[in-house]
Amino acid sequence: MTTLQDCQALDAQDPLRALRERFALPQGVIYLDGNSLGAQPKAAAARAAEVVTQEWGQDLITSWNKAGWISLPERLGNQFAPWLGVGQGELAFTDTTSINLYKVLSAAARIAREDAPGRKKLISERSNFPTDLYIAQSVCQEYGLELVLLEPEEIAGALQTDVAISMLTHVNYRTGAMHDMAAVTAAAHAKGILCVWDLCHSAGAVPVDLKGADADFAVGCSYKYLNGGPGAPAFVWAHPRLINRFWQPLSGWFGHAEPFKFVPDYHPAQGIQRYLCGTQPMISMSVLQCGIDIYTEAEAFGGMAALRKKSLALTDLFIQLVQERCQGHGLGLATPREHAARGSQVCLTREEGLGVNGQGSGAYAIVQALIARGVIGDFRKGDGGTGRHKDILRFGFTPLYVGFADVWNSVEHLRQVLESGEWQRPEFNTVHAVT
Amino acid sequence: MTTLQDCQALDAQDPLRALRERFALPQGVIYLDGNSLGAQPKAAAARAAEVVTQEWGQDLITSWNKAGWISLPERLGNQFAPWLGVGQGELAFTDTTSINLYKVLSAAARIAREDAPGRKKLISERSNFPTDLYIAQSVCQEYGLELVLLEPEEIAGALQTDVAISMLTHVNYRTGAMHDMAAVTAAAHAKGILCVWDLCHSAGAVPVDLKGADADFAVGCSYKYLNGGPGAPAFVWAHPRLINRFWQPLSGWFGHAEPFKFVPDYHPAQGIQRYLCGTQPMISMSVLQCGIDIYTEAEAFGGMAALRKKSLALTDLFIQLVQERCQGHGLGLATPREHAARGSQVCLTREEGLGVNGQGSGAYAIVQALIARGVIGDFRKGDGGTGRHKDILRFGFTPLYVGFADVWNSVEHLRQVLESGEWQRPEFNTVHAVT
Repeated sequence: MTTLQDCQALDAQDPLRALRERFALPQGVIYLDGNSLGAQPKAAAARAAEVVTQEWGQDLITSWNKAGWISLPERLGNQFAPWLGVGQGELAFTDTTSINLYKVLSAAARIAREDAPGRKKLISERSNFPTDLYIAQSVCQEYGLELVLLEPEEIAGALQTDVAISMLTHVNYRTGAMHDMAAVTAAAHAKGILCVWDLCHSAGAVPVDLKGADADFAVGCSYKYLNGGPGAPAFVWAHPRLINRFWQPLSGWFGHAEPFKFVPDYHPAQGIQRYLCGTQPMISMSVLQCGIDIYTEAEAFGGMAALRKKSLALTDLFIQLVQERCQGHGLGLATPREHAARGSQVCLTREEGLGVNGQGSGAYAIVQALIARGVIGDFRKGDGGTGRHKDILRFGFTPLYVGFADVWNSVEHLRQVLESGEWQRPEFNTVHAVT
Repeated sequence: MTTLQDCQALDAQDPLRALRERFALPQGVIYLDGNSLGAQPKAAAARAAEVVTQEWGQDLITSWNKAGWISLPERLGNQFAPWLGVGQGELAFTDTTSINLYKVLSAAARIAREDAPGRKKLISERSNFPTDLYIAQSVCQEYGLELVLLEPEEIAGALQTDVAISMLTHVNYRTGAMHDMAAVTAAAHAKGILCVWDLCHSAGAVPVDLKGADADFAVGCSYKYLNGGPGAPAFVWAHPRLINRFWQPLSGWFGHAEPFKFVPDYHPAQGIQRYLCGTQPMISMSVLQCGIDIYTEAEAFGGMAALRKKSLALTDLFIQLVQERCQGHGLGLATPREHAARGSQVCLTREEGLGVNGQGSGAYAIVQALIARGVIGDFRKGDGGTGRHKDILRFGFTPLYVGFADVWNSVEHLRQVLESGEWQRPEFNTVHAVT
């Protein structure tokens, strides 16, 4: 049996331990929700003060050049590019994931319309994050495509020559299951299908090599594992072979070849700049820098190889401890045990009918009871037994700031919540607005 | 002749004087560029610290509910709604002006396609801010419309039954000329044309009554007169009679009727919520609150009537003093003298051939020389004598923080720069990147 002392020993030997000091985490909290909103880098407060007080307040408009606001979307993109396996000038931070997805899906639809006009399907996963499906619905409506939603095991078989675009999220938000990006992309390309990847739950969390996998387009957010701050600008990437083929439809002035010439006709810039649109929220974007800087610093601590090794050790340990210590309470595992198919989160399931008075699964109440104890994970509702999705208790493990003793303590809290029946208290069974 | 003492007396009697204290302006600077980037409310630094350190750092994901992040786009919209003459639930702050314009132009194009499929023109002004024209080009391409660019005097005659959409900016960014929104909208509606208004240079600067003018859609930015911070989220409005007629194409989860149900099909929310898309940059949006709060406070000081009265007095005074004190240096006036046709800025022109060695107009150098003296305006390039647009020296007068003595002093600096020939120095004639 693994003990708390064993875990403390693992923390003491952790080569990434110094990076935890870069984050301001609340006292008494074990934060396992960095896959929803990443923790605050300590540098963020000073950076926010600097951009508000000095760059905005004192330097005013001169900061567009003097503080480099104008080039920040692309500078941050270039700084983070190695973590996604992409080159300079290919990645930018801007707008939101949904909007960036609209840009790249539109570009892909325009390319497909020209290269393969007979293809009418855009495939995705039924349990993809909903905003991806909503944006895909819109693009399908505009370009006369059909959105086909599949279960994960149906995807390989569906990659046929009637498909124009495959739009998948690398790591599933509900289950933590990870696609083999290189294999899926190769199978899709063999049939002439363009591949769009959403990296919201994988950027900074797992190894991503977009060029190595030969992906076509990618988007993702910066407020989860990148610790960029609430709603921090998202990123967008296009493969160099496609990047200049079409405008994306959000053809704002920041995507213009010469934005400050103020000419009336749109001439898209070369490279990822054409995926920019309007003026970016510079306070949020300047603070995002602090999150990216920690990744740059992490390169000296072994980079993604070290992060991934620790992430798998943390999630392995969590799975093992839940099995050892929380038996008999109806918990199951939604996240794959196989390392190659696992992101940086562990999702537990609970059967319907195990809730208070046999109502529901009780998963929501268990998560609430854990939060009351300072163990912050989150709950994702299932389909109430009508389909294949069970209620989920979701725990994210950001290796930059989560330690092995945190894992041990969180499972111990879970054990106590379950064994004491504490989760059955009325206050944990009142459903509030869920984000 | 108006003296500095006269101006100081006007400042002493200014009923809005207390509001100037809400802003942190640099020492020794006369800031006449609030129509590019508004000044920093003093409250912004503390608000940024609170959202970064407490709401993000300590309260983490609970802030989506506890700090009200989730509803901030619509709460800010409701708070500012009276300043645009619109109702509750009709206005939201989100994304960028360019993106919001894409949403409303797309919605207007969908409505026009259904109601009047034979209409194929989208008209605008050739000297509209370019990003508006770029976005319109994109929407025209998608919906099979023709973008027709007009000079201001051609607009009235062009409002005919072959036009689907009129897209105009209320106050022109180059000249400060203001359209009569109610008259143009009435003339357009008489011919069945939908009216989209860009309020970037009018929101918070001049009286705007969208419902009174019976406008159809409006967008605008918050980083100019609203003092929301660099790149702060923009706003979007749709008339209640149209708001629920169509999806806009950026159908992200925040525009869904039930965003946290995570259902795979898009069902647009009622009201302005359907114009939301993805997760907003909450640090920038929280700081924007400080700018909006000053407008709410200004209601007790006479509201827009008082702001407009002061704005016109400031711009009248600037025009008068330039005429009295800066004769003989080739300056002209691009901004209308007529109050009803003037925004809150004054744009001076300078003829080609008056620059150093007869090259160019010298307007750029004059602006640079003024900036070196702490008088911050900006320069907008003309067409070099090939068309109707002269080089422009642009001065914005935000009545919340610009005073009458500022006007006097800025003209005195301009006089000295011109009479001394100081502007001819080489350092003022080297063109750097212009924003």
